[in-house]
Amino acid sequence: MKEVAIIGGTGYGAIELIRLLQAHEYMHLKKIISHSQHGQQITSSYPHLHGVIVEPMEKLDIESLIDEVDIVFLATPAGVAKEIVPLLQETSLQCIDLSGDLRLNNRKEYETWYGKEAAPQKTIDAAVYGLSEIYKEEVQQAKIITNPGCFPTSALLGLIPAVKHRIISLDSIVIDGKTGVSGAGGKASAMTHFSETNENVKPYKIGKHQHIPEIEQYLSEIANESITTTFTTHLIPMTRGLICTIYGKLTKPMSTKEIIDLYQSYYEGHPFIRIREEGIFPTTKEVAGSNYCDIGICVDERTNQLIIASAIDNLVKGASGQAIQNANLMNGWEEGHGLGFVPVYP
Amino acid sequence: MKEVAIIGGTGYGAIELIRLLQAHEYMHLKKIISHSQHGQQITSSYPHLHGVIVEPMEKLDIESLIDEVDIVFLATPAGVAKEIVPLLQETSLQCIDLSGDLRLNNRKEYETWYGKEAAPQKTIDAAVYGLSEIYKEEVQQAKIITNPGCFPTSALLGLIPAVKHRIISLDSIVIDGKTGVSGAGGKASAMTHFSETNENVKPYKIGKHQHIPEIEQYLSEIANESITTTFTTHLIPMTRGLICTIYGKLTKPMSTKEIIDLYQSYYEGHPFIRIREEGIFPTTKEVAGSNYCDIGICVDERTNQLIIASAIDNLVKGASGQAIQNANLMNGWEEGHGLGFVPVYP
Amino acid sequence: MKEVAIIGGTGYGAIELIRLLQAHEYMHLKKIISHSQHGQQITSSYPHLHGVIVEPMEKLDIESLIDEVDIVFLATPAGVAKEIVPLLQETSLQCIDLSGDLRLNNRKEYETWYGKEAAPQKTIDAAVYGLSEIYKEEVQQAKIITNPGCFPTSALLGLIPAVKHRIISLDSIVIDGKTGVSGAGGKASAMTHFSETNENVKPYKIGKHQHIPEIEQYLSEIANESITTTFTTHLIPMTRGLICTIYGKLTKPMSTKEIIDLYQSYYEGHPFIRIREEGIFPTTKEVAGSNYCDIGICVDERTNQLIIASAIDNLVKGASGQAIQNANLMNGWEEGHGLGFVPVYP
Amino acid sequence: MKEVAIIGGTGYGAIELIRLLQAHEYMHLKKIISHSQHGQQITSSYPHLHGVIVEPMEKLDIESLIDEVDIVFLATPAGVAKEIVPLLQETSLQCIDLSGDLRLNNRKEYETWYGKEAAPQKTIDAAVYGLSEIYKEEVQQAKIITNPGCFPTSALLGLIPAVKHRIISLDSIVIDGKTGVSGAGGKASAMTHFSETNENVKPYKIGKHQHIPEIEQYLSEIANESITTTFTTHLIPMTRGLICTIYGKLTKPMSTKEIIDLYQSYYEGHPFIRIREEGIFPTTKEVAGSNYCDIGICVDERTNQLIIASAIDNLVKGASGQAIQNANLMNGWEEGHGLGFVPVYP
Repeated sequence: MKEVAIIGGTGYGAIELIRLLQAHEYMHLKKIISHSQHGQQITSSYPHLHGVIVEPMEKLDIESLIDEVDIVFLATPAGVAKEIVPLLQETSLQCIDLSGDLRLNNRKEYETWYGKEAAPQKTIDAAVYGLSEIYKEEVQQAKIITNPGCFPTSALLGLIPAVKHRIISLDSIVIDGKTGVSGAGGKASAMTHFSETNENVKPYKIGKHQHIPEIEQYLSEIANESITTTFTTHLIPMTRGLICTIYGKLTKPMSTKEIIDLYQSYYEGHPFIRIREEGIFPTTKEVAGSNYCDIGICVDERTNQLIIASAIDNLVKGASGQAIQNANLMNGWEEGHGLGFVPVYP
Repeated sequence: MKEVAIIGGTGYGAIELIRLLQAHEYMHLKKIISHSQHGQQITSSYPHLHGVIVEPMEKLDIESLIDEVDIVFLATPAGVAKEIVPLLQETSLQCIDLSGDLRLNNRKEYETWYGKEAAPQKTIDAAVYGLSEIYKEEVQQAKIITNPGCFPTSALLGLIPAVKHRIISLDSIVIDGKTGVSGAGGKASAMTHFSETNENVKPYKIGKHQHIPEIEQYLSEIANESITTTFTTHLIPMTRGLICTIYGKLTKPMSTKEIIDLYQSYYEGHPFIRIREEGIFPTTKEVAGSNYCDIGICVDERTNQLIIASAIDNLVKGASGQAIQNANLMNGWEEGHGLGFVPVYP
Repeated sequence: MKEVAIIGGTGYGAIELIRLLQAHEYMHLKKIISHSQHGQQITSSYPHLHGVIVEPMEKLDIESLIDEVDIVFLATPAGVAKEIVPLLQETSLQCIDLSGDLRLNNRKEYETWYGKEAAPQKTIDAAVYGLSEIYKEEVQQAKIITNPGCFPTSALLGLIPAVKHRIISLDSIVIDGKTGVSGAGGKASAMTHFSETNENVKPYKIGKHQHIPEIEQYLSEIANESITTTFTTHLIPMTRGLICTIYGKLTKPMSTKEIIDLYQSYYEGHPFIRIREEGIFPTTKEVAGSNYCDIGICVDERTNQLIIASAIDNLVKGASGQAIQNANLMNGWEEGHGLGFVPVYP
Repeated sequence: MKEVAIIGGTGYGAIELIRLLQAHEYMHLKKIISHSQHGQQITSSYPHLHGVIVEPMEKLDIESLIDEVDIVFLATPAGVAKEIVPLLQETSLQCIDLSGDLRLNNRKEYETWYGKEAAPQKTIDAAVYGLSEIYKEEVQQAKIITNPGCFPTSALLGLIPAVKHRIISLDSIVIDGKTGVSGAGGKASAMTHFSETNENVKPYKIGKHQHIPEIEQYLSEIANESITTTFTTHLIPMTRGLICTIYGKLTKPMSTKEIIDLYQSYYEGHPFIRIREEGIFPTTKEVAGSNYCDIGICVDERTNQLIIASAIDNLVKGASGQAIQNANLMNGWEEGHGLGFVPVYP
């Protein structure tokens, strides 16, 4: 049994980690650490945890972390993990950072897109990108994981087989992302106000989303050449769920069936990727509460366009579930341990 | 390991049973039986089960049920279980009926409220009302369970301690129920149409809901005198969740604190009942996806009125979760086995 | 043409006044006054007004108000109107206050329920309660209107005929209120956060809502004796709409039909009250965007209980629409002028 | 005053026409014609019209139409208008068809995409495409209008200035459409079931939507060359609202500001088109209940991609509002008469 701490206890990432850890047999949640609410009960903000979590949240104390836990999940806002992970880097602790702090290799890029000073290069270099299906072997060896963003998880899992096999023109990629409101976190703002968000579709951060460089970095790495993509994001009146509709021009004629076969073969043995049969597209509800990434594929023969839809639960496969999956891989446990939730439907 | 069949495979009750059974270690889902879609894959209606359920649904065949399974869950529309359960009554099978067919002791009452001929009296007499917290011992001995309706589960768990202890006047009870749309099932109708239901609160079946006699029968049994209640139902624009706000005149002055203590003591040792502290009321989201029933209590001293709110997930504690809980009790397993889900929040 | 100012330009009350005033032929919106955002365009917060409102918001200046406008609508948070209305009381301006500042006759009550010092008694005494259907003649003579709260509008219109005619026992009244999130205003908070509110029913301010003394004061006035009521409020995952389900014990047996007739006769000639036929209850969507108050009535003969449901759009009949209706009455215009909106459906 | 009939009285298109016609001073709603429910009150399906519409719906009778009305709106399912309009073609009646029956010039295309025999060529030839801003002069002369589809209205208004000025490469166009559920009409189905649709984004009819040939036909006409586009549609958990996010590769470098200027100049004098300033994108809620089409524009300089978002209320500018706008133009009334609704917000 490994002892676990969550840092950033009052955000939705932490709340979802708590839910998932209750179903995990090899990890025990020892500490929930909150900067703003230490000493308080988590149930005062999250009464659904009544009877589940009884210990108060704690203040961050690096020494006691090192003494008492084996695995640290950082579910902190941008700019926090880059201060904490370096302090743990020389210890035996495993760190899994759910924020964007360690995702970009190039410190300048981080500073441009996040508007903050980047983490030390040494920490960035040590961090493995935890897109579990793609970097499985690296994750198994890692001590620091930078857990992917929600949109990059969906977009990269949807795109990588096509890019790897060069079946689409690399300068033609358009990604139209749609996300539920929980992706904006638990902080109250005009963006998350019910009356503003309900019965509404809102395009936001057009051309400016910090997930753009993350998607491009890993696509470029896969393709072994520099790729830029057009990526937009839309806020949808639902709490959970995220889907990217992805467009790319085929480099040569292929049928839908051929591409589905290619994807199925690419993801064979990966329990959380479900490729839908021809004519069927996934919806976000079909993965709700689960760690699945469901992918639908269609060739629009009239326009020679490949159309891919890739659906996840932004808080599970797009955040906390994938973090658990990475912890499983790092510790030699079954990849899907504690993640066997059937989607909650309807 | 017990083998299990679900009859009524295309309704939400069955779908939720499938989700919950995947997490159960002592029951194995052997058969999904559907009258209307046997021979078909369940994934054609419920693609979220892609990779989870691979066998096609089957036709009802009593012989093979008796041969191959130990426990039968009936998640069928009103009027079906009353035909099937009698055929299984003399076998060794355990039957858990999620419909209303066996809930009313008086066959005339069934015929009045359900508009159909009632089940054989012999079958009704053999069925134990599976309100697990109240009838635990009877359930442990039962072979046929009539699983409570969603509103009665919420209303009875909220009311029984007050009625038992006669702290409210028995002719003053008002129950104002609010339910998500999944309570109306998966069939498409004007009642469940998104455009009609979204952004709407709809009072329905005022004075005519078939859960009225069920609530009154069991309250009367607890009180050992005949009770009638005013019960209304409202359709709320959400998928899951149900809450009853319950009103009753106090028979003598009591403080909120005293009544909370009384409820806590009444439900001590029952893991799925959570009584909230003074000043806090539960919300439906705080139990979503879980088997909890959360209860908030307040005395309105200005009017001498006791106000209770009782929240459940209508598909879990209000249907399939309670059915599993009953199966656990009937088989001597831990009451909460396979039901340890933390609520899905947000 | 009368010139109009709105004070409190950034709340939903003001936004709805702006929408309604655009359709009014005898009032011209001259000034939008905002304490927090004067000098700014209203479209920076409310881009749906692009091309509709082009003048920037102004600072409050009593002199220029007196000089330039005839009618002032105050759509300000609690505690503001009680400072401003006294300054306008001796002028020729008509004031319509949408806040709760002038609704309670007893200053102590205001201080108890609102936690602030009350308005001067002289101003309270001069204010007429603008429940247009009940106090029509008083409104026609008024210079200061205290516009009713959203819940009191629904509850009082639903209850007054029954109370006036003493067909229900006055100590038995229970009002179960359900409101959309816009009732909580435009300010971002945990209460209005989409992810917390969506897929949720939340009982709130149980026994503590500031609309309780307002309902009781006017019911008592109608009955000519002191009435207390049990009143609860529930937050519903929708933006607009409010419905009160009201319960009262009949003092003598009456049929649903008799009571419907009594209500229809009571509200004859009032264009915004629609009494539904027997067996039909209104829903909130059926009044959305309109100034209607729709009322459904049912006698539950089993329990001798009268059940009434009264539905309004909380921002129209529950606030800005009723304010316009009062302005019409005060100025001798047709009561429904500029309010002839058919509900927006679906 | 012109007399008006609506054919297809029980669909959402008709319901919205009824709402809008109540605010129109030069048209009087004389008849509502329903094939399935003639003789019944419309309030039995749509109780929000209680007190607004009191005459029962009528059976279709061509003679009495010709005798009694001047303008006919057809809000019928696909395949009906093509039978009715030819019968009225030689009369003096003005016909405005909201269905897709007359939109495609090529009868074969209609048969391919709609799966039905097409209207007579003579009727198709006589019908003017009622995209009011683009074909204003033709509409002013027309006697038969084929009112545009909801997605084509949004997509064409968003694309035409760019295509006309050839600022984007014509083979690069991708249109990602998102619509509320009312676009699927009032008929109950799995597609419109609340529990299936709520908390869900569902890609549908990928590569097969019947609005594809409509968009391409009119774009090709504008460009004077054959254009194919990639067009996808997504069902969003909201009732009203539609937005197309449109992508096209710039043919030469241009700034966002230059393109906004070009659009503003293109749509000058058109009261229902609102071009947003740089950095601002419209949302669907900002046009709810109104006839506006709001357009946001951004050049993604990293990828040389033009990104346009075009938002409408699918039932107003995307259907009934535009139909009224066309009736205004055909009769020489002010283009915006009866359509001056401020968006209903929030």
